[in-house]
Amino acid sequence: MEENNVITQQNVETLPASNVGENDGKFAKRKYVKNQKNVRKTDNKKTSKGNLKLSFLGGVGEIGKNMLVLEYGNDMIVIDSGLSFPDDDLPGVDVVIPDITYLIENKDRIRGIIITHAHEDHIGALPYVLAEINAPVYGSKFTIALIENKLREHRNVKMKANIVKPRQTIKLGCFSIEFLNVTHSISGSMAFAISTPVGLYFHTGDFKLDLTPINNEAMDLIRMGELANKGVLLLTADSTNAERNGFSMSEKEVGVTLDNLFGQYKTKRIVIATFASNVYRVQQILDIAEKYGRKVAFSGRSMINVCETACKIGELRYNKNNIIDIDHVDRYPDTELCIITTGSQGEPASALARMACGEFKKVEIGKNDLIIFSSSSIPGNEKTINDVINLLYRKGAEVIFESLAKVHVSGHAYRDELKVVHSLLKPKFFIPCHGEYRHLRAHANLACDLGMNERNIIIPELGDQIEIGKNSMKVARQVPFGARLVDGLGVGDVSDMIIRDRIQLSEEGICVVIVSINKLTGAISAKPDLICRGFTFAKDDAEKMEDARDVVINAISQVNFKTQDWGYIKTNIRKSLTSFFTKKAKRRPVIMPIILER
Amino acid sequence: MEENNVITQQNVETLPASNVGENDGKFAKRKYVKNQKNVRKTDNKKTSKGNLKLSFLGGVGEIGKNMLVLEYGNDMIVIDSGLSFPDDDLPGVDVVIPDITYLIENKDRIRGIIITHAHEDHIGALPYVLAEINAPVYGSKFTIALIENKLREHRNVKMKANIVKPRQTIKLGCFSIEFLNVTHSISGSMAFAISTPVGLYFHTGDFKLDLTPINNEAMDLIRMGELANKGVLLLTADSTNAERNGFSMSEKEVGVTLDNLFGQYKTKRIVIATFASNVYRVQQILDIAEKYGRKVAFSGRSMINVCETACKIGELRYNKNNIIDIDHVDRYPDTELCIITTGSQGEPASALARMACGEFKKVEIGKNDLIIFSSSSIPGNEKTINDVINLLYRKGAEVIFESLAKVHVSGHAYRDELKVVHSLLKPKFFIPCHGEYRHLRAHANLACDLGMNERNIIIPELGDQIEIGKNSMKVARQVPFGARLVDGLGVGDVSDMIIRDRIQLSEEGICVVIVSINKLTGAISAKPDLICRGFTFAKDDAEKMEDARDVVINAISQVNFKTQDWGYIKTNIRKSLTSFFTKKAKRRPVIMPIILER
Repeated sequence: MEENNVITQQNVETLPASNVGENDGKFAKRKYVKNQKNVRKTDNKKTSKGNLKLSFLGGVGEIGKNMLVLEYGNDMIVIDSGLSFPDDDLPGVDVVIPDITYLIENKDRIRGIIITHAHEDHIGALPYVLAEINAPVYGSKFTIALIENKLREHRNVKMKANIVKPRQTIKLGCFSIEFLNVTHSISGSMAFAISTPVGLYFHTGDFKLDLTPINNEAMDLIRMGELANKGVLLLTADSTNAERNGFSMSEKEVGVTLDNLFGQYKTKRIVIATFASNVYRVQQILDIAEKYGRKVAFSGRSMINVCETACKIGELRYNKNNIIDIDHVDRYPDTELCIITTGSQGEPASALARMACGEFKKVEIGKNDLIIFSSSSIPGNEKTINDVINLLYRKGAEVIFESLAKVHVSGHAYRDELKVVHSLLKPKFFIPCHGEYRHLRAHANLACDLGMNERNIIIPELGDQIEIGKNSMKVARQVPFGARLVDGLGVGDVSDMIIRDRIQLSEEGICVVIVSINKLTGAISAKPDLICRGFTFAKDDAEKMEDARDVVINAISQVNFKTQDWGYIKTNIRKSLTSFFTKKAKRRPVIMPIILER
Repeated sequence: MEENNVITQQNVETLPASNVGENDGKFAKRKYVKNQKNVRKTDNKKTSKGNLKLSFLGGVGEIGKNMLVLEYGNDMIVIDSGLSFPDDDLPGVDVVIPDITYLIENKDRIRGIIITHAHEDHIGALPYVLAEINAPVYGSKFTIALIENKLREHRNVKMKANIVKPRQTIKLGCFSIEFLNVTHSISGSMAFAISTPVGLYFHTGDFKLDLTPINNEAMDLIRMGELANKGVLLLTADSTNAERNGFSMSEKEVGVTLDNLFGQYKTKRIVIATFASNVYRVQQILDIAEKYGRKVAFSGRSMINVCETACKIGELRYNKNNIIDIDHVDRYPDTELCIITTGSQGEPASALARMACGEFKKVEIGKNDLIIFSSSSIPGNEKTINDVINLLYRKGAEVIFESLAKVHVSGHAYRDELKVVHSLLKPKFFIPCHGEYRHLRAHANLACDLGMNERNIIIPELGDQIEIGKNSMKVARQVPFGARLVDGLGVGDVSDMIIRDRIQLSEEGICVVIVSINKLTGAISAKPDLICRGFTFAKDDAEKMEDARDVVINAISQVNFKTQDWGYIKTNIRKSLTSFFTKKAKRRPVIMPIILER
């Protein structure tokens, strides 16, 4: 008797991990539309050996987790290893990285990983990739410096890093890759001109065509022209702003606006929130602050880290006397201060959000502050940014953001800039990348408008492997692809089922039902107990609670006890209670029955 | 022995409802910044009897749940009873309504509820208010018709409804309220000119100054001018677009754009998504469709309901021969069809979202479809709308939205329109309302720019009761205010603690720990069991699971059993397991210990 007085392994751990079937329709309550899987039908026939193959493991049909795999014969190179940040439909997930099964299956063929630039959606997955793939990494000086920063948090990961200069060519297997300067919202951004046995492949990486760049390192149109003369077989290009007409503003124009604001608000303290990695922006702010006799304090861990790194390798230049520690801002009058901070996306833990909430002791926001959001809203962050702006206004501060003044500029080419690149390179084949489907399609339409044959363009889907020959291009097969969820220290162990559970738990809560059954007779020894979290039902209504207990007792009695089928008893409890709660309260908590055998 | 063989009431139900203390810092992971409570310090002294009192139960510092209470002496009237839709930080909540404690406490003094217009943020809380307050409701013909529609879903609620015509005056206690036409994005929108013993109070309601309105019923500037001549003591006005410069576009201009698109896309089927309540928009689409020889099908429950209601009372006029049932669209060629649908906000259950997903059998979207979003993105919906747009593009459709063409116009006045109203009415005192703090402040600044004395303006916070005399205005005291959460059939029973639990459950999942303890000796009869949902830990690693069980056993043994303090034992289990999971997996599930006494 005593031994049976505990839960036995089999009746607990066989608990199905999700009530999936019962609750499918329920998830509509959450505001999201599931992306349909868009797996192409291909014949997956044996691929031709003489073709170039390009596989899309990320970055198409989405903004984020950019990863391209280029191969020919036995040689393979990887372009970028990015992460994406989870939407609201992935609660609790820290970051999302591409499924790299295809890389792991071919690890011996990978000659190197080449990186266009150091934004998270291009380098964020590297720590996870390098943990499984032992390949050298190539990038510009600033790119490599920021990757090394990042790897400090992943001590068990080692990297063979190689700095490549603009116009320098490296050889990886049968590929020769020339690194070319492009302008973007981070220093050290590169395009790749890749000589392959089939022809020249040009990949723009993220870029804009800034004709008055901050560091005087313009996009290398001259070299692009030379390459075009030799003939470009294939172009893959940034589609982020393919829906926007015209030419994007130059980074320098932001400087003009900021200069005007500094001139206009001489009596106020100035706090500017921007992206830490936008060294050009920070450089302009530093220069303007110096011009107006203001000391600069950096605030926020990533801002301090990136600026120190950039300064160390000469990407950021400033007079050290003009920089003060954020702890010492109270030693200077408002009129002599400029604070550059993180938090432009309203991130709750950021320096700016804490200032807005009055939780950042070093900087107390008040009526004499001008806050400039030198940034745009990344889609999905509108609400949190808005919350921070309201809090800042409440403290009496003035707030300036993109819709009020030209205090930010996009890092991605608009339609006219894309047209310049297409017209210059005149590629035979074109694959738009780096964008959601709508952007890719707009970019494809743009190429058609410029006279390209529709048949020479493919809008890629995730997992597509496209084969390019001298005279042909087609989607040849599918390679494994998907999203691996990083949650805490776990990579990939959080499944769809767990996410589904979390969503139901978040909307409905949980009701644990504990019932004790006599193993021999099937008798229920006492009234079942119901314990709830995130769910409430007739808390002060003893009668209704009694009804709920009766529902459980009924559900058990309906089952022929002789079979001792605990799983079936539990299913019946779940069904009966779900229908009871739905009817009485229009709620559908996760029901977790626990049966104690006696 | 047998009687002790079940969980006893006290050790289960005394389980604290939340691990609040342990997990406070954790919520930063979720993308949200908590709004600080902005309760003013007032002396709450006895209020002067000879003053007008205006209390803000909703709609200030937020967009949504509009509710104002006006009182003088023993008379009280309520202006609007709106709801708001929950943000992501209120998972599982259906709608949010104002806390109406103040109304309930004063129910005998309420002479009536007057409604400006029938948008949800002005009428949505009525079913809940009328369930507790027995007061007559006054509104325009269309407003009352839509409220009656709504009340059909709340059968136990009765309403004494009164239709008021433009320029008609009603008397409620000591107040005389004249209803005046305003232009807005829904028919039958009214401003109120309220004669009070202290002076004239003008409340704009939601409005824009559309000088070429669709139904030729312009904003009643003439009557406003007459009233201004007599002197306006107080103005409360819509601040939604107080940050936007210039004059908003007229609704008629949207018609011009739509007409052009119909002319341009003659070979395609046209699907237009818009707000069901925007009868003006629907009227224009109906007229244009008729002009181009297209039959119109309505799609989506709310679209069909509102249009039928509007037609019945003459707000919408169309030739019945031109309307077809959505089930019969396949009987007509694409070129002769126009579908007007709900789903402009990407709502997953809407007709348009289901079309985009291929789950709406009546309408299959393809290459010959033009989809027009004749709408704007309500903040927070950007992602879902974007998902729907991508799905539509994937099906080959063309998609047109606000940023591509003038297919929508705001229903709220821009700065120049606000200036016209201020200049016309020349109120002595001004309180901006209907807006987030940033909008209220921008509106207050605008009034100052027009020459108003800063001291005659108050930016209200929720719960403020403002007293207005002939020569003075001040925040006199606080009335009870807040948000009541509606979840399923429950109103107000979902507490902050339950929401907090849901958020933690959604990000971290739950781990139920079941342990059986001998009541007499304190011995643990068998290894504890751990059951998880929405959380995973070393699933295939028996050794790590064993470690987790040992942690539980240790936690129990640390407690002096003699005290039989089950609560303390549970707290210790929670603490130990939380720290174990944090260390081993950087995860913090909700820990729910269940102790079985033997």
